[in-house]
Amino acid sequence: MPTFETVRGMRDLLPEEAETLNHVIAKAREKATLYGYKEVITPLVEPYELLSAKSGEEIRQRMFTFKDLGERTVALRPEFTASIARLATTALKNEPKPLRIFSVGSVYRYDEPQRGRYREFWQSNFEIMGSNRPEADAETILLTNNLMKAVGLQNYAFKIGHIGVIRGILSQENVDEKAQNAILQHMDKREYGQAFKLIKKEKCRKSLQELLELKGDTAFETVEKMKEHLAGYEEAEIAANNLLDIMKLVTESGCPIETVEAAFARGLEYYTGMIFEVRVSELDVALGGGGRYDRLIEVFGGESTPAVGVAHGLDRIALAMQMQKTALSKRREKTAVVIPVKQELKAEALKISQMLREAGTSVEFEVMGRKMAKALEDADRRKVDFAVIVGERELKEGAVVVRDLGKHKQTTVEIQKLAEKIRG
Amino acid sequence: MPTFETVRGMRDLLPEEAETLNHVIAKAREKATLYGYKEVITPLVEPYELLSAKSGEEIRQRMFTFKDLGERTVALRPEFTASIARLATTALKNEPKPLRIFSVGSVYRYDEPQRGRYREFWQSNFEIMGSNRPEADAETILLTNNLMKAVGLQNYAFKIGHIGVIRGILSQENVDEKAQNAILQHMDKREYGQAFKLIKKEKCRKSLQELLELKGDTAFETVEKMKEHLAGYEEAEIAANNLLDIMKLVTESGCPIETVEAAFARGLEYYTGMIFEVRVSELDVALGGGGRYDRLIEVFGGESTPAVGVAHGLDRIALAMQMQKTALSKRREKTAVVIPVKQELKAEALKISQMLREAGTSVEFEVMGRKMAKALEDADRRKVDFAVIVGERELKEGAVVVRDLGKHKQTTVEIQKLAEKIRG
Repeated sequence: MPTFETVRGMRDLLPEEAETLNHVIAKAREKATLYGYKEVITPLVEPYELLSAKSGEEIRQRMFTFKDLGERTVALRPEFTASIARLATTALKNEPKPLRIFSVGSVYRYDEPQRGRYREFWQSNFEIMGSNRPEADAETILLTNNLMKAVGLQNYAFKIGHIGVIRGILSQENVDEKAQNAILQHMDKREYGQAFKLIKKEKCRKSLQELLELKGDTAFETVEKMKEHLAGYEEAEIAANNLLDIMKLVTESGCPIETVEAAFARGLEYYTGMIFEVRVSELDVALGGGGRYDRLIEVFGGESTPAVGVAHGLDRIALAMQMQKTALSKRREKTAVVIPVKQELKAEALKISQMLREAGTSVEFEVMGRKMAKALEDADRRKVDFAVIVGERELKEGAVVVRDLGKHKQTTVEIQKLAEKIRG
Repeated sequence: MPTFETVRGMRDLLPEEAETLNHVIAKAREKATLYGYKEVITPLVEPYELLSAKSGEEIRQRMFTFKDLGERTVALRPEFTASIARLATTALKNEPKPLRIFSVGSVYRYDEPQRGRYREFWQSNFEIMGSNRPEADAETILLTNNLMKAVGLQNYAFKIGHIGVIRGILSQENVDEKAQNAILQHMDKREYGQAFKLIKKEKCRKSLQELLELKGDTAFETVEKMKEHLAGYEEAEIAANNLLDIMKLVTESGCPIETVEAAFARGLEYYTGMIFEVRVSELDVALGGGGRYDRLIEVFGGESTPAVGVAHGLDRIALAMQMQKTALSKRREKTAVVIPVKQELKAEALKISQMLREAGTSVEFEVMGRKMAKALEDADRRKVDFAVIVGERELKEGAVVVRDLGKHKQTTVEIQKLAEKIRG
């Protein structure tokens, strides 16, 4: 007998959960259309070397990697950006810029399962390629804000940072890229002790420590203080100014930024500029996040292409909606069961079911061969609106009996008028 | 530099292809609602033992099987039915019958790639559990017929068979189940010589050979001839009568059945009754198929539950639509680009973009910082309908300039009336 359990860290979404996730997916797809992003579908299984190229050590270790029957090392995608960057250097290479690309689907990471964190999860992913300007960065935050609003979430908050600030300081202090990556990973996990251990110069260590402790009353004040502190670190100052430009565009468009954090890194190694996340207090995991990655496409052999993107954790958003008791706004159509009075009338009853479906009504056909009372009782329990009873006598007159299961009333209705009667 | 190629047998779906596949998915989901099927989402990675339990040797060998980091043997699902049967014995165990369940997503088989056959492909999957009656079998065929119609396919044809006919003969001739499975697999691939080698009794071999050669002018005639031939094979006769009942219901509901084939088996070992497929002449692969599997749920430790299901090859359907030049019936909404005349007006222009999106218009914001002429030229080339030009002078009067890119005309429009102007 096979096991009944799902693989650890994965789970089944039952009808109500699936409906909520599908609703969030539909909203993300709606945003993609409204912002002019074209959808592509890339494989879930990709070459390991593609997925591991610039994702960073942490994600590399958490990928579902294996050999296919042709002995190729492949992995389940842990995110979309590598696949989209591949497309940008191949099939979409000659598309005019900016190139706005959307994807949605499941991704896989071997993480320790916790609330809101599974090994199979769903993302919507937006990438805008070809622009190095703050308005492109702002767009990824604004559309995220729109998605949060569209699904009805409350009290979500944005945190923003800029990889260029810390990298700018470290580069000027001659810390090599590999060490920079390790330092950023530690800082991102708030392992400051371990991060500082990797920095040899006392002065640099001190400067970073002070930077991390800066805090203003508003996010803007924090960046202004950061800028003062960065005097002399030219690259880092440019980064802070860029961050400020993006924040202005975003807040002026009605999306507040709650927090700025200099040491914020988001785990992925390919980021080069602004990074951000959105969270709700009910969950320990981010609902979405993204950032700028200006060098990924050239690493993949394409022309140097500035790019910025965002991924939304769709099942986390669905979970947050559930925790905030957000109601799905859906119009419920009337439903029906169709029951033949006797076996000889099955074909006629099937035809009537077909007719109702063509008119847009959800119809369950009685496939259990139950007695009428039993079939009606079952339909009633499942909150179906109408039972259409197909009997010989009524059929001869081109009619059927319609029972309103809510009102416990039944009437004879001409078949021609049945669809109209049920849709109401 | 990482490889640019997708894994062998997998491919990227570019915007137009993705749109067609998404259209087919939407139609399948619409049918699920109209027929009263509830959607569930099951993991793509499942325990190997679950997926391999009753799928049959051929599919077992073609699964993407691997060990996860916890040393569990897992595989990518090659189909949905095993996962749904698991659910039917666990979370959905106590749901009233009939239980109608729908799923849609990608599945994985290590097949030799050919036109319409990839190693990653998409299926919509419908299962109806709890009914052993021909109307349940008929429903899976009828909804398949409806789906084919809904996507606009022409000249598709149904082939039907019944596993109980051949198994009935073999059982009565004391051929054990394992040998039966091997015989059916050979027959399904039209390797009759190899199939017959596994049958020891001359009489049985002869009887089967004659059965396979039977052919009437219509599918019904073929079954009638089969029935005559099966005299004395009680179980096989019952199967043929069951097949006839299903065929009658289906054809009387307006779905013709083109072919009946006694030796038709569909590769999967778990089938116990009626099986069917739908094809178009343009493709060598089936667009969908299914059948009855009355013993799978008890094999998985659940109560004995008759069940019947169908899976549709959605990317194959999309390919067939392309080959038949089926147009997607879609309403194209007007689109716009929003371009600030100078950098200082970016925030204002972003706000106007937001307003238009809230009114349902797809808006691309100018993120390249290009000169006006260049930005307009690009929008024109990409067949955008309107350019909204945000300039200082007009803004002061609460207006913007709207350029109709098709008509090459521009007018000044009040911001309040902008959304209306663009939606037309």
